[in-house]
Amino acid sequence: MIILGVDPGLTRCGVGVIEAGAHRRLSFVHVDVVRSSPDMSQDLRLLAIYNGLAAKIDRFAPDTVSIERVFAQENRNTVLGTAQAAGMAMLAAAQRGIPVALHTPTESKLAITGNGHALKPQMERMVARILGLNEPPTPADAADALAIAICHALRPAGALQGGEREQHLTPAQRQWAQAAQRSSGRGRRNADRGM
Amino acid sequence: MIILGVDPGLTRCGVGVIEAGAHRRLSFVHVDVVRSSPDMSQDLRLLAIYNGLAAKIDRFAPDTVSIERVFAQENRNTVLGTAQAAGMAMLAAAQRGIPVALHTPTESKLAITGNGHALKPQMERMVARILGLNEPPTPADAADALAIAICHALRPAGALQGGEREQHLTPAQRQWAQAAQRSSGRGRRNADRGM
Repeated sequence: MIILGVDPGLTRCGVGVIEAGAHRRLSFVHVDVVRSSPDMSQDLRLLAIYNGLAAKIDRFAPDTVSIERVFAQENRNTVLGTAQAAGMAMLAAAQRGIPVALHTPTESKLAITGNGHALKPQMERMVARILGLNEPPTPADAADALAIAICHALRPAGALQGGEREQHLTPAQRQWAQAAQRSSGRGRRNADRGM
Repeated sequence: MIILGVDPGLTRCGVGVIEAGAHRRLSFVHVDVVRSSPDMSQDLRLLAIYNGLAAKIDRFAPDTVSIERVFAQENRNTVLGTAQAAGMAMLAAAQRGIPVALHTPTESKLAITGNGHALKPQMERMVARILGLNEPPTPADAADALAIAICHALRPAGALQGGEREQHLTPAQRQWAQAAQRSSGRGRRNADRGM
C-alpha cells in the first residue's frame, strides 16, 4: 500500500511517499517539496501547487493521500494559503478517485513518538528510524510530510472516525454511512470544525 | 467583456455573470449557486465545487473571474472551507488562462451603492437597477456574486493595485512589474494578508 503524505503550504508544500507492507513494515519511497513563489499572484501560485501535487500523485499512484489538517486558529497571515494548498491536494486526489485522510499534527506526533507534544528533532529521528534511513530525510521540512504518511499507516484502527472512516468504504457503504450519520444527527459535525 | 463573479462558499457558492459594454453599460447574463452537501467528505465537496465552477467558466468563457476576497478574521468554523472554495475558483480560472481579480465586500458595496457599509436589501436593489432587472435576482444570496462581478466592472481604474493590477498585464509586463515590486520591497505584502 502506497501512502502519499502532504504537509500543506503555499510557498513550500511537503510531499512524502512511503510503502506500507505486511506487519506494519514501512519503507521510504520519496520526499520532495512543491514550491510557489510569493511574487506570483495567488491564482498562479495555487496552479503551481496543484500541478506539482497532481504530478506526484500521478507518478506514485498512492492508495491514500494523507494530509495534515489545517486549523483556523493558526497564523492568520498564512492560514488561508495553507488551507487552499491543502484544498489543491484534496482536489487532485478526489479527481483521481483516491481516498483522502486528514490527520492533526498531534495525531502524527503520537503515532510516531508516542508523545503528542514531541519536538521537531525527535520527530525527524523517529521518522528516519521507522523508515530504516541512516539519516533524517532532507529537505528537513519535508519530513513532516513523511510523518503524516507514517501517521496514517500506524494509526490505531479504532481511531478512525467521521469522514476518515468513510474514505475506506465503497460508494454504497459510504452512502449508507452518511445516511446513518444524518439520522443520528452526530457524525461529521466535530470533524468539520477543522478543515 | 464578460465578467464572472464568485461569492465563495463550500455549501453554497454563488456565481453571477454580467456583460460589460461601452460606457460602463452592464447587462445580466446568468446567476446560479453551485452547492456541495455537508454530508460529503471535504475532498468530495471541493471536487463538487470545482466541477460546478469549471462548468460555469467553460459555458460563459469570461474575460475575468472576479472573486470575493476571504479574510482570516471571518467566522472560524467556515472560513477555511470558504477560502478553499475561493481556491477552487482561482484554480479553475488559472488553468484556463483567465485573469483573476479579488475584491473585498467593502469595495463591492462602495462600487455599487457608494456606501462601504451598505446593507443587503440596498445592495440587492442596486444590483437589479444597474443590470436593468425588474426584480432583485434570485436566489437572493447569489446577488452577492453579481455584485462582485459588477464591482470589477465599475472599479475606478486608479484603484487597481498589487496582484490585481498584474492580472491585466502581458506575461512580460507582469514579470517586469514583479521585479520592480521585489526591488522596491513593497508590492504584494499587504495584498497577501487577505487571501
